[in-house]
Amino acid sequence: MQNFDYCTPTRLIFGKDSVEKLPEVMKPWKRILLTYGGGNIKKLGLYDKVKELLKDFELYELSGIQPNPKYNPSVLDGVKICKEKNIDVILAVGGGSVLDCSKAIAAGAKYDGETWDLITYKVKAKEALPIVDILTLAATGSEFDCGGVISRTETNDKIGYLDPVLFPVCSILDPVYTFSVSKKQTAAGCADAMNHVMEQYFTSDTTLLNDGFCEAEFKSLMENARACLRNPEDYRARAEMMLCCTYGCNGILSLGNSPSGWPCHAIEHALSAYYDITHGEGLAIITPRWMKHILSDKTIDRFVKYGVNVFGIDKNLDKYEIANKAIDETYKFFESIGIPMHLKDVGIDDSRIDEMAHHIAVNEGLDQAYVPLMEDDIRSILLASL
Amino acid sequence: MQNFDYCTPTRLIFGKDSVEKLPEVMKPWKRILLTYGGGNIKKLGLYDKVKELLKDFELYELSGIQPNPKYNPSVLDGVKICKEKNIDVILAVGGGSVLDCSKAIAAGAKYDGETWDLITYKVKAKEALPIVDILTLAATGSEFDCGGVISRTETNDKIGYLDPVLFPVCSILDPVYTFSVSKKQTAAGCADAMNHVMEQYFTSDTTLLNDGFCEAEFKSLMENARACLRNPEDYRARAEMMLCCTYGCNGILSLGNSPSGWPCHAIEHALSAYYDITHGEGLAIITPRWMKHILSDKTIDRFVKYGVNVFGIDKNLDKYEIANKAIDETYKFFESIGIPMHLKDVGIDDSRIDEMAHHIAVNEGLDQAYVPLMEDDIRSILLASL
Repeated sequence: MQNFDYCTPTRLIFGKDSVEKLPEVMKPWKRILLTYGGGNIKKLGLYDKVKELLKDFELYELSGIQPNPKYNPSVLDGVKICKEKNIDVILAVGGGSVLDCSKAIAAGAKYDGETWDLITYKVKAKEALPIVDILTLAATGSEFDCGGVISRTETNDKIGYLDPVLFPVCSILDPVYTFSVSKKQTAAGCADAMNHVMEQYFTSDTTLLNDGFCEAEFKSLMENARACLRNPEDYRARAEMMLCCTYGCNGILSLGNSPSGWPCHAIEHALSAYYDITHGEGLAIITPRWMKHILSDKTIDRFVKYGVNVFGIDKNLDKYEIANKAIDETYKFFESIGIPMHLKDVGIDDSRIDEMAHHIAVNEGLDQAYVPLMEDDIRSILLASL
Repeated sequence: MQNFDYCTPTRLIFGKDSVEKLPEVMKPWKRILLTYGGGNIKKLGLYDKVKELLKDFELYELSGIQPNPKYNPSVLDGVKICKEKNIDVILAVGGGSVLDCSKAIAAGAKYDGETWDLITYKVKAKEALPIVDILTLAATGSEFDCGGVISRTETNDKIGYLDPVLFPVCSILDPVYTFSVSKKQTAAGCADAMNHVMEQYFTSDTTLLNDGFCEAEFKSLMENARACLRNPEDYRARAEMMLCCTYGCNGILSLGNSPSGWPCHAIEHALSAYYDITHGEGLAIITPRWMKHILSDKTIDRFVKYGVNVFGIDKNLDKYEIANKAIDETYKFFESIGIPMHLKDVGIDDSRIDEMAHHIAVNEGLDQAYVPLMEDDIRSILLASL
């Protein structure tokens, strides 16, 4: 078991009508930057609701934040507003992308230089604006962690940026606002969260406790994703899905585990940086191919445990039979919830595989992963995913 | 799934040599009240270590805090020192009792009236001194929650006191300091933590996710307690045990579950208030009798799930056979780790059963528990425990 230093100070207000607590949450501040994406929060009635609840505050807006949120213009525009209007707090309303973007804005707003210096860790952020969020999509876990992922289109960079100053002060999670999430996004959100757990489960040093936590996540995510797809307004399923996703990235599922290097995320970040695909779909495509690639006598016991405890595969079978069945079940689960399971299905052909493999090998440090991946390994995984 | 409002801002610094970070943690403050129990932290070398690490601070001391910590003199003495010496922060070094006592002191130090008014919620604490702890016993979970239990001998009161202002700022957890914990206390600590999880698992509204979290706790606690007893210096076992216990009481294992009323704790608090027995032993004695008492067609499915998932009992057996086996296994586990399993073994006879049953029925609100318990029910459980 490894040493660790953990703290997640974020308050979670969870459940039906939890948004009513917004005025109480925002009480310490006056000037708010409301950040959101397209028109979804307006369709949900959430935009009007927030405006009504916050009628006694000074409200500024940044809209149009895209999936795989962009440094330019979204982060830059947000920082500019915060500085010009002397914003006290950011209220992010939307999914993980809106929140991730808002985290970068929160850091940039308190820094005199280029925000990109913070995101690339050239400079360590000293502070950030406080962040509150109202989540409308179960997926990234950004509502309970201190990280975000920001893309810079011109350089094909998609960078994970973590800093303890970026924990949301408060995340408001009402599952009802996820009822209208499309089947595609529901499935992608589930795949994203499944992979967050896998990146913590598949590593060399784990505990019985953490393995049990992760296995509970896998089983709950799969069962509840299926239930959400069957009936998008199944409150219990949407709620459990939302909480499962919330635990994905703050480390609570794997305190004391050895780091894995988060290899599927590292590979997928290049895919969506080069092609702007849906992150969860990219992960679902990569994951079973990565599993096949790393399966060996060294990793077999992990896969056996995963197969037996998550999919109920007979533990008396041959180890490799169990492992391969477990990988097949993973693939079949993603396929069953409607995820396109080949890169070509999401518009990626073989033309830039070499370039992406090189980019990942140089930038992502996967030679330090649970199973070290060199450029050739990464290329093989990408080719197998076509 | 129930609405909830959750926040645990405590920083956990976990692992070998984590105490070295103490000066960094204490940096914001100057005048420290060091609280501890008997001579154990001196035997461990921890007392000298702390004094050496904090040689640049102003250090005051409150020692002699007992198990089932007492309002008089410990809490009162601590509050007095804090006020007289203008203490900035409390550093609790020891087990859950030292920490619980320190929480009450922290609240009392910032209140002009009687601290007992805060503990009994007659007055809501507005603030409390910050608390840092170095834990030397895996059991109560006080290091990651905002509660404490304080006893007042003259009235046979043992009161659980919770307030969000009482979360430790930082808990330093080095499993090595638990190597010398006696077999008796190791077993009692495990039983305490097992019961914390049961109080969250046995309730009417749960989720697949929370059930999995709790089942992982049960399995890990049992396996690691056995390993700690076999070899008290097994670092991995002591470490996993410590983390399992840490999650016991802050709610993270059951967010969204319906409240259970914590019936075994309610009953045990009277036992240790009247007889000052070891809390974990009292819980282990009560638990299987409470289980037998509440087993019915309404609760059977919970017990079946518990039996199948925690003890691996054949799911094809008759439901009541599974449930009764599960209860027997629970009893046998506690017995196997050396816990005396009858009240008479810990010095409690039938002379005050009626009085205790009445006290619990009047004070603990168990008519609202998962399975409501009236005075007669409580008496039956106590009598069955003799």
